[in-house]
Amino acid sequence: MKMGYAPPKGMRDSSPETMLMREKVIDTVRAVFKKYGYVPMDTPAMENIEVLKKKCGEEIAGQIFKVEESDMGLRFDLTVPLARAAGGMSVPKPFKRYCIAPVWRREEPQKARYREFWQADIDIVGSPSMRCEAELLACAKECLSALGFEKIQIRLNNRKILSAMLKEAGVSKENEAAVFRALDKLGKKPEGEVREEMAAKGLQETQIKKLFSYFEGKDNEEKLKRVDFAKEGVQELREILEYAKMYGFEKGITIDLSLVRGLDYYTGPIFEIAGEGGVGTITAGGRYDNLLELYGQKEYATGISLGIERILYLLEKESEKSAPAMVYVAPVSIGYYADAIALVQELRSQGFSVITDLQNRSLSKQLEYANAVGIQNVIIIGEKEKKEGKFLLRNLRTGTETLAKKEEVVNYIKSFEKK
Amino acid sequence: MKMGYAPPKGMRDSSPETMLMREKVIDTVRAVFKKYGYVPMDTPAMENIEVLKKKCGEEIAGQIFKVEESDMGLRFDLTVPLARAAGGMSVPKPFKRYCIAPVWRREEPQKARYREFWQADIDIVGSPSMRCEAELLACAKECLSALGFEKIQIRLNNRKILSAMLKEAGVSKENEAAVFRALDKLGKKPEGEVREEMAAKGLQETQIKKLFSYFEGKDNEEKLKRVDFAKEGVQELREILEYAKMYGFEKGITIDLSLVRGLDYYTGPIFEIAGEGGVGTITAGGRYDNLLELYGQKEYATGISLGIERILYLLEKESEKSAPAMVYVAPVSIGYYADAIALVQELRSQGFSVITDLQNRSLSKQLEYANAVGIQNVIIIGEKEKKEGKFLLRNLRTGTETLAKKEEVVNYIKSFEKK
Repeated sequence: MKMGYAPPKGMRDSSPETMLMREKVIDTVRAVFKKYGYVPMDTPAMENIEVLKKKCGEEIAGQIFKVEESDMGLRFDLTVPLARAAGGMSVPKPFKRYCIAPVWRREEPQKARYREFWQADIDIVGSPSMRCEAELLACAKECLSALGFEKIQIRLNNRKILSAMLKEAGVSKENEAAVFRALDKLGKKPEGEVREEMAAKGLQETQIKKLFSYFEGKDNEEKLKRVDFAKEGVQELREILEYAKMYGFEKGITIDLSLVRGLDYYTGPIFEIAGEGGVGTITAGGRYDNLLELYGQKEYATGISLGIERILYLLEKESEKSAPAMVYVAPVSIGYYADAIALVQELRSQGFSVITDLQNRSLSKQLEYANAVGIQNVIIIGEKEKKEGKFLLRNLRTGTETLAKKEEVVNYIKSFEKK
Repeated sequence: MKMGYAPPKGMRDSSPETMLMREKVIDTVRAVFKKYGYVPMDTPAMENIEVLKKKCGEEIAGQIFKVEESDMGLRFDLTVPLARAAGGMSVPKPFKRYCIAPVWRREEPQKARYREFWQADIDIVGSPSMRCEAELLACAKECLSALGFEKIQIRLNNRKILSAMLKEAGVSKENEAAVFRALDKLGKKPEGEVREEMAAKGLQETQIKKLFSYFEGKDNEEKLKRVDFAKEGVQELREILEYAKMYGFEKGITIDLSLVRGLDYYTGPIFEIAGEGGVGTITAGGRYDNLLELYGQKEYATGISLGIERILYLLEKESEKSAPAMVYVAPVSIGYYADAIALVQELRSQGFSVITDLQNRSLSKQLEYANAVGIQNVIIIGEKEKKEGKFLLRNLRTGTETLAKKEEVVNYIKSFEKK
């Protein structure tokens, strides 16, 4: 036997089990997005390279898959394409959109990290108010809850506070991006390495020490007071906490003044949602008020993104194999295929998922197949059954058989629908 | 005002109206696929170039978007990736899968033809029987019917008949692909040009005449008899017609012996479904028994593909703008925002799509916005309402206002759900 070909490095085929789960996750998230009044808007998989690189930062820029003999690359997120498309759009503001689609990054593949991965984003274009951030978090939280993730932790920071902290510590504006990149590794790498990276960028020991002193403590209020030199940023976070109270999730928010987020385009509040118990970041986002201006007119904007691959990884642990159909209709020989098709089509027209023989197999081979794909209910059609105008119902799990009329068959199958 | 950036050449942004329609089409098609017992299986957007080029033919090979500094390209269809993935798979056969996803081709953009377009495919791996072709057509037909396309025409041919016809006409095996490519243009270009293209490939006038003589006539049986030298191919088409009778759509099938289909990998029956009245091909497919062997073990396979972009193009003519939410909750001032959020969240928890103010706008500005996005029902919360424990319902279309309790508000909104 020849070997099959593998998918490209860092990418994967999604089996029926994974896909059914993916569809369920996407349907669930989409239903929540709609309840919050978000509307779908999609953009192509490819964008002009210039569009992609405008404000993504060095690291991401190096991860873009470029298209040969063109000025295009594959999108690395759904935010930049939105900014490009919405930058020239004329709709009533705020404009609230969702997009659930794959993105591509040329990263070193790791466990549960792929070079092709799906994101589910919601974005609000056109409002400067922190009401937006609170709604984004409430909506994301409800998505996660609908997916079974009840215990979550929201970490919140503000790029304005981060910038002000760096200024207070005497770090030059030119060094800001490099320090942000180093800080972004906190939690993934030991703190010592992060401090070393900052030192390598020319920060003095006292500067690094001062920076890290801001991150200490557990109390949100205490932390915000410590950085009250960053007036605007602190005020914004206080407002988010205030609005979160109205939604009832303020207790789940931790101010984390070391939180940075990897992308260069953020300008205000930034946030991450993680499952409790070291489950890692499932959702993240932030405000990017200056991004749309790069592609059209100036406009406020903020958004949040759910990592579908991450969610699938957590859910797959508890997934089980599911049958392709609820019923298998088995004609005992070729002479009963027309009767089988008639029954199959009638059951399908009533909304049941049904399959039948596609290659004139013997009855025993058909039962073997139905069993192999996990179907419990088989309806057998042969001479005796046809003569009596009935069908033989066999439950492959219990082994029970019943000769029944069509209406009884339908009722029997209906009784399985909710199981 | 600066100009916004456009999407890449031949690709498009999908507006909320288009996306809602796209989601509806995909959900509809997916539900039908499931009733027929197909299970989802997806593959990455990218594949090894070698995988893509193995059997696609010259024309398509030239349309592949290649990825820089890699041996990868973007998939041009969903069949080749399936063949690659299923070639090494061990599952009970027949394996029936669906996949609804975008593909990419570097074609010259035309009206309603894009360089990124979605396909909805079903494939059956592991059965040589024409029962498969009949089921594929029945399932595709039901999808189209569920989408409102009742009047359709199925054209059917067989690559085995085409090859035998060429042999009968004395065309060399080496010239087969070129003649197929020329024939594929019938209906898109004048017949004269197609004949000229064949002549340019070295076919003699008598050969061309003989070829075209096979295509004449209207009666299916007459046409099949004329090519009875192609025994196996004719027998297969007769079987499909026989099975189609069981499903009840045999009258909708026209044998078209000039039908070729553009892709090189087909080996048996090929088919196209078009809407009546020059609407063009919406669905197409065929058998590709030898394709999987190129990537793993030999296996029978056949499939059909619905063109989502084509369907959207036909449906968009009748689409209308839809509101992002069913209800707008308007606090008259900032002091009532907490009450607004409480009501909004309660309505959302009951499954309604609801939006509220995200930037502390005045009541009149809020009503203006609700009206602009097409929302009819507004619930106003202010001092008087709060004191009485009631809400002011305003219907923006009729102008009527009612002061009502929460339960009444919910019932009122429920009455709109089915509209």
